[in-house]
Amino acid sequence: MQHPLPGHILYGGDYNPEQWSEDIWQEDMRLMKLANVNMVSINIFSWTMLEPAAGQYHFEQLDRIMDLLYENGIAADLATATASPPTWMSRLYPSMLPVTREGVRLTHGSRQHYCPNSPDYRRKGAALVQRLAERYAKHPALKMWHLNNEYGCHVNQCYCDNCAAAFRVWLQERYQTLDVVNSTWGTTFWSQRYYDWEDILPPRLSSAQNNPGQVLDYWRFMNDSLLGLYRLEEDILRAVAPTIPLTTNLMVAFKPVDVYDWAKHMDIVSFDMYPEPEALPSWNALHHDIMRSAKGGRPHMVMEQSPSEVNWQPQNPHKRPGQMRLHSLQTVAHGGDGVLFFQWRQSKTGAEMYHAAVVTHEGNEHNRIFRQAAQVGAELAKLSPIVAGSRIQADVAILLDWDTWWAVEYLPGPSDRIKYMELVGKYYHAFHQQNVNIDVVRPDSDLSKYRVVVAPMLHMLHRGVAQNLEQFVSAGGTLLTTFYSGIVDENNHAALGGYPGELRSLLGVHVEEFDPLTPEMHNELVIKEGSLAGTYNTDLWGELVHLEGAQAIGVFGSDYYARKAALTVNKFGAGHAYYLATLNDADFLVKLAAELCQQAGIKPTLPISSEIEVTKRVTETGKEIYFLLNHTQQAKQITLPHGTFTSLLDDSSVQGEITIPAMDALVLQAE
Amino acid sequence: MQHPLPGHILYGGDYNPEQWSEDIWQEDMRLMKLANVNMVSINIFSWTMLEPAAGQYHFEQLDRIMDLLYENGIAADLATATASPPTWMSRLYPSMLPVTREGVRLTHGSRQHYCPNSPDYRRKGAALVQRLAERYAKHPALKMWHLNNEYGCHVNQCYCDNCAAAFRVWLQERYQTLDVVNSTWGTTFWSQRYYDWEDILPPRLSSAQNNPGQVLDYWRFMNDSLLGLYRLEEDILRAVAPTIPLTTNLMVAFKPVDVYDWAKHMDIVSFDMYPEPEALPSWNALHHDIMRSAKGGRPHMVMEQSPSEVNWQPQNPHKRPGQMRLHSLQTVAHGGDGVLFFQWRQSKTGAEMYHAAVVTHEGNEHNRIFRQAAQVGAELAKLSPIVAGSRIQADVAILLDWDTWWAVEYLPGPSDRIKYMELVGKYYHAFHQQNVNIDVVRPDSDLSKYRVVVAPMLHMLHRGVAQNLEQFVSAGGTLLTTFYSGIVDENNHAALGGYPGELRSLLGVHVEEFDPLTPEMHNELVIKEGSLAGTYNTDLWGELVHLEGAQAIGVFGSDYYARKAALTVNKFGAGHAYYLATLNDADFLVKLAAELCQQAGIKPTLPISSEIEVTKRVTETGKEIYFLLNHTQQAKQITLPHGTFTSLLDDSSVQGEITIPAMDALVLQAE
Amino acid sequence: MQHPLPGHILYGGDYNPEQWSEDIWQEDMRLMKLANVNMVSINIFSWTMLEPAAGQYHFEQLDRIMDLLYENGIAADLATATASPPTWMSRLYPSMLPVTREGVRLTHGSRQHYCPNSPDYRRKGAALVQRLAERYAKHPALKMWHLNNEYGCHVNQCYCDNCAAAFRVWLQERYQTLDVVNSTWGTTFWSQRYYDWEDILPPRLSSAQNNPGQVLDYWRFMNDSLLGLYRLEEDILRAVAPTIPLTTNLMVAFKPVDVYDWAKHMDIVSFDMYPEPEALPSWNALHHDIMRSAKGGRPHMVMEQSPSEVNWQPQNPHKRPGQMRLHSLQTVAHGGDGVLFFQWRQSKTGAEMYHAAVVTHEGNEHNRIFRQAAQVGAELAKLSPIVAGSRIQADVAILLDWDTWWAVEYLPGPSDRIKYMELVGKYYHAFHQQNVNIDVVRPDSDLSKYRVVVAPMLHMLHRGVAQNLEQFVSAGGTLLTTFYSGIVDENNHAALGGYPGELRSLLGVHVEEFDPLTPEMHNELVIKEGSLAGTYNTDLWGELVHLEGAQAIGVFGSDYYARKAALTVNKFGAGHAYYLATLNDADFLVKLAAELCQQAGIKPTLPISSEIEVTKRVTETGKEIYFLLNHTQQAKQITLPHGTFTSLLDDSSVQGEITIPAMDALVLQAE
Repeated sequence: MQHPLPGHILYGGDYNPEQWSEDIWQEDMRLMKLANVNMVSINIFSWTMLEPAAGQYHFEQLDRIMDLLYENGIAADLATATASPPTWMSRLYPSMLPVTREGVRLTHGSRQHYCPNSPDYRRKGAALVQRLAERYAKHPALKMWHLNNEYGCHVNQCYCDNCAAAFRVWLQERYQTLDVVNSTWGTTFWSQRYYDWEDILPPRLSSAQNNPGQVLDYWRFMNDSLLGLYRLEEDILRAVAPTIPLTTNLMVAFKPVDVYDWAKHMDIVSFDMYPEPEALPSWNALHHDIMRSAKGGRPHMVMEQSPSEVNWQPQNPHKRPGQMRLHSLQTVAHGGDGVLFFQWRQSKTGAEMYHAAVVTHEGNEHNRIFRQAAQVGAELAKLSPIVAGSRIQADVAILLDWDTWWAVEYLPGPSDRIKYMELVGKYYHAFHQQNVNIDVVRPDSDLSKYRVVVAPMLHMLHRGVAQNLEQFVSAGGTLLTTFYSGIVDENNHAALGGYPGELRSLLGVHVEEFDPLTPEMHNELVIKEGSLAGTYNTDLWGELVHLEGAQAIGVFGSDYYARKAALTVNKFGAGHAYYLATLNDADFLVKLAAELCQQAGIKPTLPISSEIEVTKRVTETGKEIYFLLNHTQQAKQITLPHGTFTSLLDDSSVQGEITIPAMDALVLQAE
Repeated sequence: MQHPLPGHILYGGDYNPEQWSEDIWQEDMRLMKLANVNMVSINIFSWTMLEPAAGQYHFEQLDRIMDLLYENGIAADLATATASPPTWMSRLYPSMLPVTREGVRLTHGSRQHYCPNSPDYRRKGAALVQRLAERYAKHPALKMWHLNNEYGCHVNQCYCDNCAAAFRVWLQERYQTLDVVNSTWGTTFWSQRYYDWEDILPPRLSSAQNNPGQVLDYWRFMNDSLLGLYRLEEDILRAVAPTIPLTTNLMVAFKPVDVYDWAKHMDIVSFDMYPEPEALPSWNALHHDIMRSAKGGRPHMVMEQSPSEVNWQPQNPHKRPGQMRLHSLQTVAHGGDGVLFFQWRQSKTGAEMYHAAVVTHEGNEHNRIFRQAAQVGAELAKLSPIVAGSRIQADVAILLDWDTWWAVEYLPGPSDRIKYMELVGKYYHAFHQQNVNIDVVRPDSDLSKYRVVVAPMLHMLHRGVAQNLEQFVSAGGTLLTTFYSGIVDENNHAALGGYPGELRSLLGVHVEEFDPLTPEMHNELVIKEGSLAGTYNTDLWGELVHLEGAQAIGVFGSDYYARKAALTVNKFGAGHAYYLATLNDADFLVKLAAELCQQAGIKPTLPISSEIEVTKRVTETGKEIYFLLNHTQQAKQITLPHGTFTSLLDDSSVQGEITIPAMDALVLQAE
Repeated sequence: MQHPLPGHILYGGDYNPEQWSEDIWQEDMRLMKLANVNMVSINIFSWTMLEPAAGQYHFEQLDRIMDLLYENGIAADLATATASPPTWMSRLYPSMLPVTREGVRLTHGSRQHYCPNSPDYRRKGAALVQRLAERYAKHPALKMWHLNNEYGCHVNQCYCDNCAAAFRVWLQERYQTLDVVNSTWGTTFWSQRYYDWEDILPPRLSSAQNNPGQVLDYWRFMNDSLLGLYRLEEDILRAVAPTIPLTTNLMVAFKPVDVYDWAKHMDIVSFDMYPEPEALPSWNALHHDIMRSAKGGRPHMVMEQSPSEVNWQPQNPHKRPGQMRLHSLQTVAHGGDGVLFFQWRQSKTGAEMYHAAVVTHEGNEHNRIFRQAAQVGAELAKLSPIVAGSRIQADVAILLDWDTWWAVEYLPGPSDRIKYMELVGKYYHAFHQQNVNIDVVRPDSDLSKYRVVVAPMLHMLHRGVAQNLEQFVSAGGTLLTTFYSGIVDENNHAALGGYPGELRSLLGVHVEEFDPLTPEMHNELVIKEGSLAGTYNTDLWGELVHLEGAQAIGVFGSDYYARKAALTVNKFGAGHAYYLATLNDADFLVKLAAELCQQAGIKPTLPISSEIEVTKRVTETGKEIYFLLNHTQQAKQITLPHGTFTSLLDDSSVQGEITIPAMDALVLQAE
């Protein structure tokens, strides 16, 4: 794979010229140059234009768009246009429409109205991609393929008969025999045994909850079904245009789509970044780190962000001045090499006519939104030659596992208050506050390069994961894991013989019972001595923990397990394994993270206040670039370490005590 | 059209004698006379009695009821009985049953279980109406036709195949070609282009939001479909019985039914008045003023109100003593000439057995509810000869537009906190507090007779509306409009080139951005000088406003548009156009309304406290009748203007300082 | 009927050995003996094992389980296995799957996926039961039949065509003619008259609310349909194995299933006891008293309780130490002779893998849950010879009526705040606090053995009920009834001529209006003199009450019925009838209950604090056993009445002042 524009940070947005007359296109070119745009995504929703009737293809307009971009020096991220099939398709092939769990067949009239397992959709989609690939493979504007769009955004679980049939094939491949399906899903319970493959259905609406094994496998199957669509297009594109990099715009960490599975097939991991207005800076940072880590540290990109408001939240206030710029720089700070917008020019009709765009309904450059976008474009162009391609090195890894996510939120279950990704976010936040770089990786990854590994709620232990963690700790690593870990194996079968199952010897604890708390219930973590000494509120969960080699650092403060261990550490080989049997508020988690970093000898990237987010990228030649982001509404004074730095955004030279204005950022390189 | 009972205020209720044995009918006649009833609505739910099997009609019972009414001097408001088809019809014609957006076909077993576009329902309904018309056209009891009942109350959006076909015909009539549909709806977006009329569907459940153009047109189409049902019956009745006035009981201002469209076809506008217990007096007043204005000021009537509790709110407390009387007098105060109840005698079975009636389950006159109804009957009879037929004259008009209502609440959109009718209610309330008469009219109405015109959220500008407003203002009028106005044209296409589009020169402002606020966000309106000086909380919305000729009266107090204009006035010709770029609390809106009235030289109807609602009706001969309503729980002392008045309810003579008891009213005529 | 294990309190749980390999079975036998288990329920979800293909039966595994139990001295409560049909059945007979009100046909994949009126399900179920009965009728382990499981738990309202047809047959049997159906349902209203039986449907989703008569009859029909399933199995089992007692595990008082109807056909009333964590002790007590009373005082049993957490509440915290034991002893205290768990061994897969079991995932006896279960087993074994078979005698009866429950919660109606069973619970609680034994019986029961009868919201008066109450009161009894009583007859027709209809002369009051309050509305009950003197908050409901012979004890404090009667007493024959026209908080209801008990000469079972729950069982030979339960978190000191008692749980002798530890209990027998 090669970078679509070597040495460049990509900058641009979704561009839908087909909504406008051609005189507007010329104006767009002028404005794009004003804004330093170097790449646009086109053709995302053009299927109906390209194939107005079954088998009749018309590429003339797309030809003109591609030529126009080339003439203006703007790269095309060319979409395969399969995201929204034409209306005539659902008339010709009604069974291509998805079906809800309740059995309602959806209609066309919005977008993404296809069943991922529809043979008709797959055949027609492949035919279109084949033609696109052949026509544009050699077009000089083409720098990247954009497969489909936001896979699974609206339809990530279809329950139609096509899916039922495909699910059976998937199960046959995975389990070979019905007996294995039966024992894996535990169908003896509730008299659910299958004697005929035909009896296996998607987890459609039933009289009570569906079998949890079936539900878990349906998550897996649907992820694979969507990925199958991607791979269908991938195969065509790689065959016809082997040198053009592939991407698709993933959602943020999104339950239906396992980013790690998908990243293997993508040349550049890109995603759509639409944080809620009240999201913490660490929440955005987490998602960048997931996307970057999913491809082993290779620079990722934001394929879509909004220059200002979106239109699909309950209320859609503007991004305040500076916020979009800060988000853009945070992308680069976390290893990203591209920032694109949805969309370039605001639509005057359609479902997203009130979604912000770089060029607003006013249609000119004389307004806050355009000016800000142009400024960011200029700044990224400035950073590009130095920063593009540089990498992040992390000493801390957070473990993230989609199978656990799918398993742990099955309801009814111990608690509907378990929100896996939120919990990961809380632990990420605690380490993010240390101003250290963080990777977010799968539990079966090579952990040898990290000093601290954090595994929030490692509920499901895939084969080898316990051994992987033991190896990491015994080699001197520090592991922190939490309540409700080690409970099931990869088939979702409960660990017999005592929780936390395979983690028991590594952690040196035995959990007799776990106790999900109602919102009205609380407990305390009481630590008598050491740097963490204090009493801390706990929430969500309690456990009855027995020590089996571990040492209790803290105990519960009340209830019938008062004075029993709540936070433990176990020396294991040359390392330490910590276990926290409850959920604490952020203040304690931040303290705990600081303590673990200190013990592991991890220093902050820069020794400054945690109110400033700091990251570091290192170039191939070893140059270090520091990003200092002030997400607060107040100017912050900090003291730089010894030495003089070049401030890359304004070419000034800085040292010692400096001020970062509210909602502003510095990018520094040691001179 | 003639008044059904010339010179009379109509008084009575829905009467369903078919639920009772005939001896009860005689008792009803006695009680009706006790209560001064002069008209009852009958036959509303009698289809199943009139046509017990397909094509077999039985009118004997209805004959007896009509004769009984005539013998007792009570007029019949004869319903066409099409509101609830017989159960055998849905068996014979299953496709007449409506279908939900999710595709569920509803069943019979309640009421209004028909698709408005069902050919079977239309054919059978027309046949029944034809027979009814022919049989009763000359019956001396017949004084009014009551078409169907509460059109669209339960089924105002059907999504069946009949509707799909009718929608296509409707679109062909409106747009002629598919190309125009495509460009109007902006189907280029999300690849939704139609190449075949057959592909166009109702906005059924889809994978994401339906196209907003399609959704808007579906509101229009469904309003037209329901109106088509009305007109089908209208044509028959006018042909057979041309002198009998027609009405149907509209709901209160009800999103699915555009009152202005319907009023054209009604001789008397009537509606059902069921305010929530906590509704403000101005909320009821607003609805009266809509209904009266819809027919150019001709007296309207309340076809249904409850004598006490209803049965369909979460909890149904009684109307407190005096409340029903006050509501009845308020109807007359706002130009109404009729007050009827649902229903006359409380059912002992059925879905509304716990809905209050004039004759309760006790079945006699010895209770609070009957006594109160009888008192109101006596009072209306007293007012009748003087008041009936008199008119309201208003200097203030509020603009109300169903197309805007439909467009502005489409979701997802800028804010789900936009509630158009509530907003209209807030502005109505502010002027209602001035004790001035108000009309509520369409934006394209002749505005020359008003001094102040208020256009809350004039989001959609139909062709000519901007010019209509410019003409009004340039001739010396005062216009007040608000945030999120002038955003789209009648095709729901965003104004390009700068908001508020066509209103830009009239208002003298340019709105660069609009900023919907979350419930947690607030701002302030800061006015430095003048009678409005002060700082006022604002909510819901902010805007970035640039002055283009207008003057800033007030500015925003905080956020990044602090010190930018929030309330502006633009001198335009001989008049003034005000723009308020945010939503204020009632206290400021009341002050603003007072200021605008004063500037426009509008005086209150009577110069007394706004705690007393005051209206004035003027008879053909110029007599002025004042209505003074005390909606509060306390007696209020007021001072009448110079002169002596006759108190019409008790024939006393009053002057100077007087007291209106709590929940009581005065009707005064200058002597 | 005979006791399954004469002289024994039954102890054990649901046992599903088919989920485990046979070596585990041996370990189970060892652990069961450790825990004093004497009965297990087996075969509940085994249909798929017994009949892997249509008509192919395999009983070998069940034979082995039955033999194993017998060899180990453990009785079998043998389930008929019809609770969850095999997956192949729904493929062969798709119409056996239930259909929701919205028309969605459910699928297999969970449990209870059958329509109660499916001929296919009935035929296949009966065939299985016939075979089971024949095979095991004489097996020495068989001590009880367990029919199906939790009838109606998930599917208690099916709306399919099978049900429609069966509903018509049910209506024909009940009403004979369509005319009677029409007049009973009041189909004149809203034009709903039926002229053909085929037009009658289940109350499927319609455009507005379904007819209340139809809805009420559908509750009755569905209760009868489920009971019909039970009776189908009952007939087979009684024919083949006439000496084996029958039971099924009812839910707690559960709206779809009328316990009194069902108890007639059960030899032992058993039910599943899953109180919410915050349930009051009286809530559990109420359910025990219902179950015991339903079978005329014959000992009932708990067929399922959880040894600790469940898995289907939003969050599932543990039962705290002592709580399960206290619940178990409370069962016996209220006349129960059996306590079984769901389930014996915790499943490692399936929908209930996180539901607690006696043997946890750890699989051994070394933990809190097992130890506690073993302790309870030992204690029950100790109590068994003395307590088993003894009875409760009550002076107080609460009236409970499923028809009222079904009728009174129909919506829309006067108030959605009416929760019938909660209201019964509030009155039960007030008398439970008096430490008196209570029966809970139907309104048409023989009341002659009671001194106080409480009828909360006796809304529907079946024929004879008013006379039954008059007879009770005139013979000297004390009756307390409440607001919204006497409103309808058994056909749900409103009482004409004045509320409370047939109760009017007994209560000596006339209710002119009833007034449901919103949550924001309140009133007061003001009592001027006597032991109840004071002012008490009231809620939910007010009424306008006129005295017709009764005396006002208290009056309303505010609103327009201030100073009108709120609490009345009417001397009627030798007794007194009280009427409370509103809802008071618990504190007043407890005082009122105390007053009524005192007036009726009812003394507490033991004269100690109401913080300790006290009941008394009496053996056939007249021995009295007292149960003293401390449900609080504090130790409580009490003074026993004169004399010495044997404490049966520890064989100690106690007298005078003693302490009951927190969450602990005493079982005392006078020496």
